[in-house]
Amino acid sequence: MLTDTIGAISTPPGEGGIAVIRVSGPDSVPIVEKVFRSRSKLTQVPTHTVHYGHIVDPKSGERLDEVLVTVMRAPRSFTMEDVVEVSCHGGIVAVRRVLELLLRHGVRMAEPGEFTKRAFLNGRIDLSQAEAVIDLIRAKSDRAFAVAQKQSEGALSRQIRALRTELVELMAHIEVNIDYPEHDVAEMTSAYIRERCDKAIEAIAKLLRTAGEGKIYREGIKTAIIGRPNVGKSSLMNALARENKAIVTDIPGTTRDVIEEYVTVKGIPLKLLDTAGLRETDDVVERIGVERSRGAMDEADLILLVLNGSEPLDPSEYELMEQVKDRPTIVIVNKLDLPQRIEIGEVRERFGERIVSMSVKEQQGLDQLESAIADLFFSGEVASDDSTMVSNIRHIGLLSQAQSALEEAKTAAENGVPIDMIQIDIRQAWEKLGEIIGDSVGESLIDQIFSQFCLGK
Amino acid sequence: MLTDTIGAISTPPGEGGIAVIRVSGPDSVPIVEKVFRSRSKLTQVPTHTVHYGHIVDPKSGERLDEVLVTVMRAPRSFTMEDVVEVSCHGGIVAVRRVLELLLRHGVRMAEPGEFTKRAFLNGRIDLSQAEAVIDLIRAKSDRAFAVAQKQSEGALSRQIRALRTELVELMAHIEVNIDYPEHDVAEMTSAYIRERCDKAIEAIAKLLRTAGEGKIYREGIKTAIIGRPNVGKSSLMNALARENKAIVTDIPGTTRDVIEEYVTVKGIPLKLLDTAGLRETDDVVERIGVERSRGAMDEADLILLVLNGSEPLDPSEYELMEQVKDRPTIVIVNKLDLPQRIEIGEVRERFGERIVSMSVKEQQGLDQLESAIADLFFSGEVASDDSTMVSNIRHIGLLSQAQSALEEAKTAAENGVPIDMIQIDIRQAWEKLGEIIGDSVGESLIDQIFSQFCLGK
Repeated sequence: MLTDTIGAISTPPGEGGIAVIRVSGPDSVPIVEKVFRSRSKLTQVPTHTVHYGHIVDPKSGERLDEVLVTVMRAPRSFTMEDVVEVSCHGGIVAVRRVLELLLRHGVRMAEPGEFTKRAFLNGRIDLSQAEAVIDLIRAKSDRAFAVAQKQSEGALSRQIRALRTELVELMAHIEVNIDYPEHDVAEMTSAYIRERCDKAIEAIAKLLRTAGEGKIYREGIKTAIIGRPNVGKSSLMNALARENKAIVTDIPGTTRDVIEEYVTVKGIPLKLLDTAGLRETDDVVERIGVERSRGAMDEADLILLVLNGSEPLDPSEYELMEQVKDRPTIVIVNKLDLPQRIEIGEVRERFGERIVSMSVKEQQGLDQLESAIADLFFSGEVASDDSTMVSNIRHIGLLSQAQSALEEAKTAAENGVPIDMIQIDIRQAWEKLGEIIGDSVGESLIDQIFSQFCLGK
Repeated sequence: MLTDTIGAISTPPGEGGIAVIRVSGPDSVPIVEKVFRSRSKLTQVPTHTVHYGHIVDPKSGERLDEVLVTVMRAPRSFTMEDVVEVSCHGGIVAVRRVLELLLRHGVRMAEPGEFTKRAFLNGRIDLSQAEAVIDLIRAKSDRAFAVAQKQSEGALSRQIRALRTELVELMAHIEVNIDYPEHDVAEMTSAYIRERCDKAIEAIAKLLRTAGEGKIYREGIKTAIIGRPNVGKSSLMNALARENKAIVTDIPGTTRDVIEEYVTVKGIPLKLLDTAGLRETDDVVERIGVERSRGAMDEADLILLVLNGSEPLDPSEYELMEQVKDRPTIVIVNKLDLPQRIEIGEVRERFGERIVSMSVKEQQGLDQLESAIADLFFSGEVASDDSTMVSNIRHIGLLSQAQSALEEAKTAAENGVPIDMIQIDIRQAWEKLGEIIGDSVGESLIDQIFSQFCLGK
């Protein structure tokens, strides 16, 4: 099945100093050797060594690029196959021409995610670890990256495996009872099943409690910033963007476009809705009208309503408050540095504790904003860096299904259902957990998962 | 001067399978060693070897990423210094965090082009070769890349050096005459000067003759496609884009945005003006009006006027033809596959041979279009792949100045001007040529040249 040799450009497209073509498979070394002119003979060099030379079309003799070629032999490679990486001049032309030449010499163009898929199929990583690889690439904040990294290192897999081992033991126990009914210890078995199911259910519940947070780190909180003109929406945007800059774009050359919808408040990623629009017009409410802004508001997981603390409330602000008071809203009373004239009682009446006083101008209150967001979204206990978080919607679904199956097993045990019926539920839980790490999953699911990857990984 | 150690992300920003941080300088190995946990000790590994491990913040103990680290020791590296490349997971977060950690441990953030600048300052390449590196990265077509590659390999440098050697010999000859006027061979000297100057002038002229073409390959021909609605402008665009796709974007994942202004007709890069607009509205002439389209037309190096061969000419097309007939225009008579009803005589009267009959739909005539463009832009002799081309505007300027100085020397020699005066002109030509390869250039010019680079090269 994995007898062919695949290749792709593994660096992002665009202009840069370096572009890397990755080739993996049994023929990767001899194929690259065919087009590589160097003092080194690739088929004879030691593994994990780098060689200077030129990529030359053997037919025309044309030099395509000056390159460095790295050889990493199986099984000490990303895919556990022989891997050759060709480091070309950055830009579009060189790397494309070298790839085309390799394709003509027997390399097959890799599908998106195919390198990682091979790492999975060859048994180096399990499915949840493979899925974490794409999260690592897509991560928009440090915490999202940390969550993905933990998963890629197998933290979730270990917990899933431990759970499955317990379920296997339980199933073995039941099996003995089915096979040897003469040792009937049915009473004891029922108690045992309930106890073990409870333990597993609690372990799964603990993982699922991290899911909301994990998902937020992975995907960001969809956030709409609303408010009248001149209350400080743009300044808040800028303050958040500065925060974000410290995290994502302080490296010159990083394109802002790619990530401009994301800002991070002390590590919590906010995915700003219609940011461009908000930036362009400082007066969303008045110009686009209350009606129009409702779209973004409806879609939002979080609404940040900005009010000007130094002025009395405007009738349109009363209207806005009414509209959002039952939504997950945090009210930012801005301009704390000026004398306060806002009717704060009116605000507090509608939003209780979900109010943060800030002076965006003076950079005051960002910490409190973070706490308020954390209070709203995270179940009190914001996970420490040590805990494993479930962030993948597929994993969340499978965990829930496993949990339900175990709940049913438990109820069945309580109601004296025959143990061979209970066994079926437990087996289902065991299988659902297995799907998370890629045991017993079908080929089409695997294809679907890896097709979400970017090319070259 | 080059005692510090610099670092930058050398791959393009964005999501990809691999992101590479390049570190160069005397402390590159020990600094990376400080944050690298692996079975290998970097300070002791052989050069040109690759090592698996993790980047770990030594203060917090936090694992930042799983990486491959390549060590290339001086002088066998891009910069001729100790170079370490850290290959991280693609994406934004990992690579940024690793770079930040390195910056905290004594790496200085590299300026754009600073790696290449070091390769120049350390004498591995000369200035014209360094300038070719950025052309390699920016090249939008195979021929542009080939021109840059030739230059990066030193083809232009060798010719410049040969010219300078001749001028040095000439200056030495004159010097002898100045110092030992008793051996007065003035007559002979004058003839000798004229002869040598002529030879050098001709060599420079030969290089300058390639400049137009070289510059076109490097920058593309600014092209406006105009014509009435439904004459086939969009189809031509698509046909050209398909052509271009075969060259630039047949690799899934290559963002079209980056290069969408460029299409290539059989290797000749056309930089389409206002392409987006042309695509959006199929009827530039009528909708935006003849007045409005004049802007793009004025700016264009090349106008492609598309006419529908299967219909008689429209009054607005007569108007268009009048407007562009004295501009570098190629008329495309499209829809050759249908019965022709166009008044071809009227077209030929205005454009002579600059007419190409095509059936864009049937993919007929692209070759003829290429020939027509080549005839219009390249001085008859489209350079073979072997010849060096001058493509850089800085080089063109310096070559022209050197040529003028030699012309003056020659005229002076003819007019019997004292040879020590002539010597000044020849020395100036020698210096101007030297600036091309980076002899005798000031620091500020060097800074300016390298600041055009992208980061990480």
